[in-house]
Amino acid sequence: MTLPETFHDLHRGDRPLLLPNAWDFASGAALVRAGFPAVGTTSLGVAAAAGKTDATGDARDETLALARNLARLPVPVTVDIEGGFSTRVADVAELATELASYGIAGLNLEDGRSDGTLAPLDHQTTVIAAVKRAAPQLFLNARTDTFWLAGGAPDMDETLRRVRAFADAGADGVFVPGIAADDDVRAVVEAVDRPLNVLFMPGKTGIARLTELGVRRVSTGSLLFRKALEAAVASALDVTGAGAGAPAFSYGDVQALVSR
Amino acid sequence: MTLPETFHDLHRGDRPLLLPNAWDFASGAALVRAGFPAVGTTSLGVAAAAGKTDATGDARDETLALARNLARLPVPVTVDIEGGFSTRVADVAELATELASYGIAGLNLEDGRSDGTLAPLDHQTTVIAAVKRAAPQLFLNARTDTFWLAGGAPDMDETLRRVRAFADAGADGVFVPGIAADDDVRAVVEAVDRPLNVLFMPGKTGIARLTELGVRRVSTGSLLFRKALEAAVASALDVTGAGAGAPAFSYGDVQALVSR
Repeated sequence: MTLPETFHDLHRGDRPLLLPNAWDFASGAALVRAGFPAVGTTSLGVAAAAGKTDATGDARDETLALARNLARLPVPVTVDIEGGFSTRVADVAELATELASYGIAGLNLEDGRSDGTLAPLDHQTTVIAAVKRAAPQLFLNARTDTFWLAGGAPDMDETLRRVRAFADAGADGVFVPGIAADDDVRAVVEAVDRPLNVLFMPGKTGIARLTELGVRRVSTGSLLFRKALEAAVASALDVTGAGAGAPAFSYGDVQALVSR
Repeated sequence: MTLPETFHDLHRGDRPLLLPNAWDFASGAALVRAGFPAVGTTSLGVAAAAGKTDATGDARDETLALARNLARLPVPVTVDIEGGFSTRVADVAELATELASYGIAGLNLEDGRSDGTLAPLDHQTTVIAAVKRAAPQLFLNARTDTFWLAGGAPDMDETLRRVRAFADAGADGVFVPGIAADDDVRAVVEAVDRPLNVLFMPGKTGIARLTELGVRRVSTGSLLFRKALEAAVASALDVTGAGAGAPAFSYGDVQALVSR
């Protein structure tokens, strides 16, 4: 008899866990129907759907409401809580407890702040430790935005320092969105004995190569949300006869949509 | 100097108003960015995004929250309120007042009920008259589900009786989703001196033909929402290498996604 796989187990397979990110209940349910063994959320999508900007800590209520809803799905669900929607450690721990009470399997916690800086490392490790104490059953995926916020000049030393400290603080996995070069990926895999999560970036991150390098999770971030928007607009333009040529939506395009 | 077009004016142009239907703030904003002069909502999309079924009156809160949000857009917005989320006339009038207070330009009110029957005609005309008294500035698009619920055998006499009664009760426009045959469309256009709204159905309703027949509004209903879901799943499968072959989502497929 085979026991059902836990969310932790899904990071120990022959291939990385390919984690698609939903932004509402329907997208999550559709991804489950398509056969994905787990579903994440995209904070950009959740915020933009509600008319709010991403990574500004404004979408706490929407994130909780969606998490409660997605917990109905018959697969593990992991929730992107940005930086925890608060700089107070106790607030983030309380949020994690709430998510665990819904039956959520994991969460993503990032160190990037809305002003483009990184949270002080000692603060971030304190939050990580507090979240693990509050909800030890959650798979805590600790994200560093050293690449994401670097605009092409990421600091590898700082990245390694952060992922090691996150692991020491109790993180179950580490996430470095924006990382793609073989040497960089290999360095992080060698630096920590926790599953490394990489953001899928079309044309930059081949799954076969990431598998060889030892990546354990590949997530789609806001890609599916942006593709969905593009398809909706294309379909509407098609009705008008304007036909081909719906523009693609970048992360910045989506943020611009919701700014007043 | 040209005065800005009102939502009513948009039903009096050289061509029908092509009204795309959003389900969240981002989709609405994306459609405005693409140049559409007005945006509607799709009750299927709004309900499914929240994990609820359509046409069961469960998504009142989500509909109001979305309406309040979409009212920020720089174009007229019309809101699908299903059957008004209540069988009590006063409740529906109060809902219309609330929507008008947000700056919403119009609403769709349907006579189809969740048990597959049509609301009694005298009840529906009472609701229409009460909504127009409560919020006269709203463009009230009165929808009859004689075709939608008929499963291929619509009753044209009942359809004409209803749209005439809706117009007499004060409706600003009439909507017959599912109508497509030239003779049927022509009969409704001749029966009432209010703009006729038809649902766009790929392969069944050509815009040029509908224009010739005198249709004044063509809306996309849940089409864009379903295409968005399809694109999201296709994009996720593409990452896995499963590649081509994301299934299309029918109305029933979406309803099945949210049923427990």
